[in-house]
Amino acid sequence: MALRNIKLTISYDGVDYHGWQFQPGQRTIQEELEKAVSNLVGFHVRIKAASRTDAGVSALGQVVNFKIDSPIPTERLAQAITQRLPRDIEVTEAIEVDDSFEPSASAKSKLYRYTIFTGKKRNVLQSRNCWNRPGRLDIEAMERAAKLLIGTNDFKSFAAAADKRESSIRTVIQCQVTQEDKWIYINIEADRFLYNMVRNIVGTLVEIGRGRWQVEKINEIIKARDRTAAGPIAPAEGLCLMWIKY
Amino acid sequence: MALRNIKLTISYDGVDYHGWQFQPGQRTIQEELEKAVSNLVGFHVRIKAASRTDAGVSALGQVVNFKIDSPIPTERLAQAITQRLPRDIEVTEAIEVDDSFEPSASAKSKLYRYTIFTGKKRNVLQSRNCWNRPGRLDIEAMERAAKLLIGTNDFKSFAAAADKRESSIRTVIQCQVTQEDKWIYINIEADRFLYNMVRNIVGTLVEIGRGRWQVEKINEIIKARDRTAAGPIAPAEGLCLMWIKY
Repeated sequence: MALRNIKLTISYDGVDYHGWQFQPGQRTIQEELEKAVSNLVGFHVRIKAASRTDAGVSALGQVVNFKIDSPIPTERLAQAITQRLPRDIEVTEAIEVDDSFEPSASAKSKLYRYTIFTGKKRNVLQSRNCWNRPGRLDIEAMERAAKLLIGTNDFKSFAAAADKRESSIRTVIQCQVTQEDKWIYINIEADRFLYNMVRNIVGTLVEIGRGRWQVEKINEIIKARDRTAAGPIAPAEGLCLMWIKY
Repeated sequence: MALRNIKLTISYDGVDYHGWQFQPGQRTIQEELEKAVSNLVGFHVRIKAASRTDAGVSALGQVVNFKIDSPIPTERLAQAITQRLPRDIEVTEAIEVDDSFEPSASAKSKLYRYTIFTGKKRNVLQSRNCWNRPGRLDIEAMERAAKLLIGTNDFKSFAAAADKRESSIRTVIQCQVTQEDKWIYINIEADRFLYNMVRNIVGTLVEIGRGRWQVEKINEIIKARDRTAAGPIAPAEGLCLMWIKY
């Protein structure tokens, strides 16, 4: 049998997990997914993800791949794997892709959504996957600041110090702040992301939204190329990987 | 100091808990809440709830009480207790009530909401607290069947066999089925509820909604006074205790 390269699109509620990547003794998405796929096909399968989401981070469009020579038809995989997963992880699509497909390297862009709940009374059933941050934010200022992030820039100020990649130049394709009632959504699409980049951008936009900083401060922060110039990191629970373009 | 009778209104996402009631070795709402209150006041406090919700069941308006002679002002209790709770449990109100107040016995009525998601693609971030049941349901038939349940009836057919209470006569004050896009909500208010009554009613309404039974079957089921006459029990995750009237 020929080895098939399988691309899965998966969703998960990451609040109860220690992130994507396998860690001994911790509950991770990778471990649950590898267990489910391995159980289905009858041998151990290693799975790679486009994005190694952190503890607490969710996804509606994470992409992963693995190679198998199992006789199970591709069109049956999504349901068969989901049945073997906890209820907070789901495979929404399974397709066979070219052998060269690699979920991270092949990606053209990704979109993350960050959700903030600004109401005083948090509702435990609605505010699981968000940053519970009561108090008014100046959305108009945040929108203007968000626009200044669009384009190709050195985003070193927004990267975790732990990020050791050589270049911190990235292209932000869209960065939008929208509001619905007590909810604020920040959508950021980029070609690639630095470690903690979205959460550091969100933390910075919130500093502007609460009036500590002016909108133009964004330009200073970009120029500084220094993590300490930007705002504090926003909590993981508000972050969700929405989709990946190939 | 006089002993104060404190009434708390609490919310919780019950999916990760083994219900309200303390069980050794299990994570329960009662244990978390007693730990939080005891930690705050400095001695062990026993807490009683209006409704001993089952494993997986959530609440936006559960009511509990306890008696303390702590110097902490009542108006500070809600926040101080919430700070000591996991993020999926919250105290939304704390007030001092008459010494005779007892959360279960003093209640005049309660309203439960049951949520069904009927879409094909479940979204792990939106369908945590619901019954994921893909497929069309005849809402109009379910609405008519729900109306037949309103009033004072012997609801023995909808009570778990384990329910040992002498009388199974209850008064259903309202029973409404509504639909929003792929979501169905069933609201049931009654003076008191039998064990598993809402979930057994929902399971029965779904049998009518999917066309297995006619609307009028409800009257037969009520007359039978036999659990096996009604439909299967609906999953716990869809159930939420919304409020309690005193």
